[in-house]
Amino acid sequence: MPRISAIDVVDVRFPTSTTLAGSDAMHPDGDYSAAYVVLRTDAELSGHGLTFTIGRGTDLCVMAARHIAEPLIGRDVDELAGSLGPTYRELVGDSQLRWLGPEKGVVHLAAAAVLNAVWDLVARRAEKPVWRLVADMDPIDLVAACDLRYLSDVLTRDEALEILERLAPTRAERIAHLARAGYPAYTSAPGWLGYSDEKLRRLCREAVTDGWRAIKIKVGRNIGDDKRRLAIAREELGPDGTLLIDANQVWEVPLAIAWVNELAQFSPHWIEEPTSPDDIVGHAAIRAAVAPVGVATGEHAHNRVMFKQLLSTGALDYCQIDSCRLASVNEIVPVLLMAAKFGIPVCPHAGGVGLCEVVQHMSIVDYVCVSGTLDGRLLEYVDSLHEHFTSPVVIDRARYRMPVDPGYSARMHPDSIATYRFPDGDYWRSALARR
Amino acid sequence: MPRISAIDVVDVRFPTSTTLAGSDAMHPDGDYSAAYVVLRTDAELSGHGLTFTIGRGTDLCVMAARHIAEPLIGRDVDELAGSLGPTYRELVGDSQLRWLGPEKGVVHLAAAAVLNAVWDLVARRAEKPVWRLVADMDPIDLVAACDLRYLSDVLTRDEALEILERLAPTRAERIAHLARAGYPAYTSAPGWLGYSDEKLRRLCREAVTDGWRAIKIKVGRNIGDDKRRLAIAREELGPDGTLLIDANQVWEVPLAIAWVNELAQFSPHWIEEPTSPDDIVGHAAIRAAVAPVGVATGEHAHNRVMFKQLLSTGALDYCQIDSCRLASVNEIVPVLLMAAKFGIPVCPHAGGVGLCEVVQHMSIVDYVCVSGTLDGRLLEYVDSLHEHFTSPVVIDRARYRMPVDPGYSARMHPDSIATYRFPDGDYWRSALARR
Repeated sequence: MPRISAIDVVDVRFPTSTTLAGSDAMHPDGDYSAAYVVLRTDAELSGHGLTFTIGRGTDLCVMAARHIAEPLIGRDVDELAGSLGPTYRELVGDSQLRWLGPEKGVVHLAAAAVLNAVWDLVARRAEKPVWRLVADMDPIDLVAACDLRYLSDVLTRDEALEILERLAPTRAERIAHLARAGYPAYTSAPGWLGYSDEKLRRLCREAVTDGWRAIKIKVGRNIGDDKRRLAIAREELGPDGTLLIDANQVWEVPLAIAWVNELAQFSPHWIEEPTSPDDIVGHAAIRAAVAPVGVATGEHAHNRVMFKQLLSTGALDYCQIDSCRLASVNEIVPVLLMAAKFGIPVCPHAGGVGLCEVVQHMSIVDYVCVSGTLDGRLLEYVDSLHEHFTSPVVIDRARYRMPVDPGYSARMHPDSIATYRFPDGDYWRSALARR
Repeated sequence: MPRISAIDVVDVRFPTSTTLAGSDAMHPDGDYSAAYVVLRTDAELSGHGLTFTIGRGTDLCVMAARHIAEPLIGRDVDELAGSLGPTYRELVGDSQLRWLGPEKGVVHLAAAAVLNAVWDLVARRAEKPVWRLVADMDPIDLVAACDLRYLSDVLTRDEALEILERLAPTRAERIAHLARAGYPAYTSAPGWLGYSDEKLRRLCREAVTDGWRAIKIKVGRNIGDDKRRLAIAREELGPDGTLLIDANQVWEVPLAIAWVNELAQFSPHWIEEPTSPDDIVGHAAIRAAVAPVGVATGEHAHNRVMFKQLLSTGALDYCQIDSCRLASVNEIVPVLLMAAKFGIPVCPHAGGVGLCEVVQHMSIVDYVCVSGTLDGRLLEYVDSLHEHFTSPVVIDRARYRMPVDPGYSARMHPDSIATYRFPDGDYWRSALARR
C-alpha cells in the first residue's frame, strides 16, 4: 500500500527558439517547455505527468501544480486507483483556485499536469500502459471517473454508458488490430513557418520517402508565401497526399474565409485554428463558408464545455484534443464520447514536449472503447524532443506503434531534467550567463 | 517626463471567509483578495491597479503580473498616454505567455491588473478620473486604444467609430445628468448564501430603509431554502421592488431551466450565472426557456470574444462585465460597443475587493460615450472593504456618485496593505501562527 510522500514540480525548458522548430504565425519563438510533476511514494513507485508550455510563464504552471497537487500528499495509491472521479473533482474543484479559471488557463493546465501524473501512477501500480488501464475498466467505472458536469444537455450519463457498453465486448479485436497495424498519423515536422523554401521541400521529400502521406504546413502570415509554400508541399506530396494547413489563430472570421478559399486550389484537407479558439460561432461560420475544406480546432479549447459547443453546433470537422490542456483522462474521455455521438473524428494535437507520448494513449482509447473506428483519424506527429523520454513514441511507416511500457509515457530522463531545468540546469546556467 | 522606474506587485488577502460575506453556491469560503500592482515612477506619480481573487492562487496572479508588467520599466508616462493601444497589445500579446491562455485565466487576470494600473497612471498624470480621461478622448483615439481583434464579423472599426461619434457632441449633457442624479445601483449585501433567514430579513429591511429598490439574493444550493429566502426578500422589497437572483454557475442547463421556472413565482428580474460561464449555447437555451425572467452573465466571461458570442447569439438580457477579468479599458470599451449595438444593457459585476471602485468608471463611460442611456442599467454594490481604498465609492440613496479624484480609484491605503499582505502582513502573521 504505497502512499504519496512528496510532490516535485520542475520547470523544464528546451531552447527550440534557436532553431525555429515550432514557429508559426502566432508563436514565432517558442521555447518548448513543460511543468513536470513527479508524485513520489514511500515505495519505488512514482507517477510522472506534465503540461506543455512554450517558455515564459512555465513557472506559473509549476506554482499552480504545487497548489493543486497538495491534497495528494499522504494518499494511498490503491485508494486513489479506486477513486479517480472524486480525486479529479477534489483537485479541479478547489473553491478558491477555481476563481482563477474556472477550468481554464494556468490552473487548468496545471490540473492536467497533476492528473496526468495521477493516471501515470495508477497505471504503473497496475503495471499497464494508461490505454490498457482504461481499456480494462468496466464502463460503469470509466463513467464514474469522467467529468460529465455541464454536459447533460448534450450527453447524459446513460448515453455515455451506452456508448461504452456497446463497444466493450469487442475491445480485444480492436486492440489486436492496432497491435498489428499501428495508429494512423501525420507529420508536422516539415512545415514550420520559420523554415526556408529549400528546407521545406527537403523535409517534405524526406517525409514522403519515410512513408508519410499526410503533412501539415503552417500558414497565415503572408498569402503569397503561403501559396508558394503550399505549391511546394503539394508537389512533393503528389495529388493524392493529404495536405493539412494550420493558421494558429491569426485571422478574423471574414479574413479566414477569404484566405482559405484562396488556398483551396491546393486542396487542403483541413484548415486548423483559423481564428480565436474561443470563437465557436466564428468557427461554425468559417466551416460553412470554406467547405469542402474541413475545419479542425481544439488544441486551445480549454475544457469540455467548449468542446460540447463546438461539437453540438457543427463548428468543426475534426476534433483536436490536447492531452495537456484538458484535465487528463477524466475530461478527455467525455470529449471522445461527445465526438463519437456527433460522428466527428478525433485527431489530437501533439508535438511540443511529450504531447505525442501522452495523447497516443487517448487515441487508442478512442478507437478501442469509444468510437470503434479509425475513419478520418490522424494523430499528429513531430519528430522532436522524444529523446528526453524514457518511453518515447515509436513510429513505423507513418503509424504509431502501441506503447507497451507501464504508465502514461511522460517520464523524462533524469539527465534531461538536470540539463534543461530552468533556470538552474546546466544548459540554462551557461546560456543565461552568456546573455 | 516621468518614467516608470519600478513595479511592485503585492498579494493582499482579507479574511472574509470568517464572516461568510461573499458565500455563494460555488464559493462557500472565499477570502476576498487582490493582486495589487503599483507602477512607480522617478517622480511623485504612481499608478495603481488590481485584479480580484478569492484567496489561494493570488500568488499566481502576482507572479503573472510581474512577468506581464516587465516591459513597462523605463517607459515614459507621456509616451504611454499616447500609445495605450500598442501598449495593451504588447502586454497582452507576449508570444510565450499567450500559450497559457490565450487571453484567459491567470495571465488575463494579471493583464487586467497591470493595465488597470497603466490607465490609473495615465489618468493621474492628466489629473482626471479615468471616466473623464476617456470622456475627453476623441473617438478616433479611443478606438485606437480598443482591442477590436477577432470582433470584425460583429463589430467593425468603422461601426465602433460611428457609435462613439454619434454621442460625442452630447457627452457633456450626460455627464451633467450623472453629476446631479448619480448612477443607478443594486445591492448584493443582504443575500449571501451563508446568512441565516433572520440576518437576510434584517439586511433586506435595512437596505430598503436606505433607499435600495433592487436586491440580489444567492440561490442554487437547495430549492426549499431558495423559496423560503426569496419569500423573505420579496416581502421586504414589496411587489414593485427588483429582486435579482444569482446561482453562481451551479446548474446543468436542464436543471437551470426547471429551477428558475420554479422560482418564477417570486418574479425575479434576472437569473445570474445559471450554468458554466463558458456555455454560450446553454445560456441561449436557458434564456429562451425562462423568459420573462432575464438571463444575466459575464463576470466570468473571460474576454471580448466570449462577449461577442453571448451578445450576437442572444444568449443574455444583461451584460455583466468585470473590470478585473477583462483586460481593462482597452477590452471593456469594445464590449460596451457590442452591447450597445445589440441593445443589451451593461450591468457590471462588482463587490469583491475594489471592483465597485474601478467598474463605476466603465458604467459612466457606457452612458456618456457609448450607449447614451440608463435604461435597464443597474450597477452592483456591496458594502464591504471600501475602507481600504483612498478614494472609496460614494453611494447616495442607492446611486453611485461620480468619482472626482484622479485615477481609477483602485489605490489602497498603505496601512491596509501592511496589515493584509499575504503571508507576511500583521494580520496573517498572527493568524497563520495561531493555525
